[in-house]
Amino acid sequence: MEKFYQYLLSAADFTEGEARIIVSHFEKTELGKGDFFIKQGQYCKKVAFVIEGALLYFENVKGEEKVCDFAFENDWISQYKSLINNVPSELNIQALEKTILFKVGREELEKLKQVVPKMNNFQASIVEYNFIKSANRASNLANLTAKERYVKEISANSKLTQRVPQYYLASYLGIKPQSLSRIRSEID
Amino acid sequence: MEKFYQYLLSAADFTEGEARIIVSHFEKTELGKGDFFIKQGQYCKKVAFVIEGALLYFENVKGEEKVCDFAFENDWISQYKSLINNVPSELNIQALEKTILFKVGREELEKLKQVVPKMNNFQASIVEYNFIKSANRASNLANLTAKERYVKEISANSKLTQRVPQYYLASYLGIKPQSLSRIRSEID
Repeated sequence: MEKFYQYLLSAADFTEGEARIIVSHFEKTELGKGDFFIKQGQYCKKVAFVIEGALLYFENVKGEEKVCDFAFENDWISQYKSLINNVPSELNIQALEKTILFKVGREELEKLKQVVPKMNNFQASIVEYNFIKSANRASNLANLTAKERYVKEISANSKLTQRVPQYYLASYLGIKPQSLSRIRSEID
Repeated sequence: MEKFYQYLLSAADFTEGEARIIVSHFEKTELGKGDFFIKQGQYCKKVAFVIEGALLYFENVKGEEKVCDFAFENDWISQYKSLINNVPSELNIQALEKTILFKVGREELEKLKQVVPKMNNFQASIVEYNFIKSANRASNLANLTAKERYVKEISANSKLTQRVPQYYLASYLGIKPQSLSRIRSEID
């Protein structure tokens, strides 16, 4: 709980009292490597904060696993499209390694917002952060070469090369694993 | 004002009183064809609702205009990355035709949220909508062929073929204008 509490104090302007209340609405949970936070087709009804671990967002497109995002320590995870519109999730979120989360259900989160109204703005800022991230990814995919995308992504987040299998990273970059190997050998 | 007021009543659970207050914080403005709502390098300090018209989001990448989004009637526009993080805008938002907007400055919007707290959730839902839209675009760019992207985008929004010049649509789809012509001749 302590890490999550400290994060809340540092990430937003919550008072110590508010941070304690927020923490009390969340539940600690652990995923083993390969476990799913949400599976494609299920309704996503929760949001979680990653204390430690790494997760993969992917969709099955024409029988292939297509990676669209990752999450690590201090990231928030959810399948917002499913959560917000109450439709089945188009994505899987799966743990790449042992992962510790603090999760909250949608209804519990709404109750929490009544008690700590600042949570509204805080949640908005998380969605905004994810929006900017996905807009950047779309822009990179449309406008940059594979090599430029690789360089940009790994300079922004070195965890991608350290903790993510190469074929997942290739899928995220929209290229074949062998193209990624070639790019890496050119750069390193 | 009437259209904006009716939109507020239908799009969210605002009371008539709240909708009147919201409208009173916004200012009507008109853009001629080719006018800019925001230019690359400027700080975006406002959000606007489109009453009528069409707008183009694009960035200059290596001397080329790269289109990343469009907006039409009943869309909200802003360059959120610039607005939220207070950094220069990486994008231009330009009117494709005569456009009528209701705009509000960032500070005025914050004041409005104090008076009508529901605006917090409403604004969050707009950002969430844009987030889902850009996540879809990224997924389409990474996983679909140009033809599949074209079919998917125009079935979701027929305005794209009716009101957007073909070279802008090609850029949005991440393809050359001649590829788009070929795809259209195959389909039509």
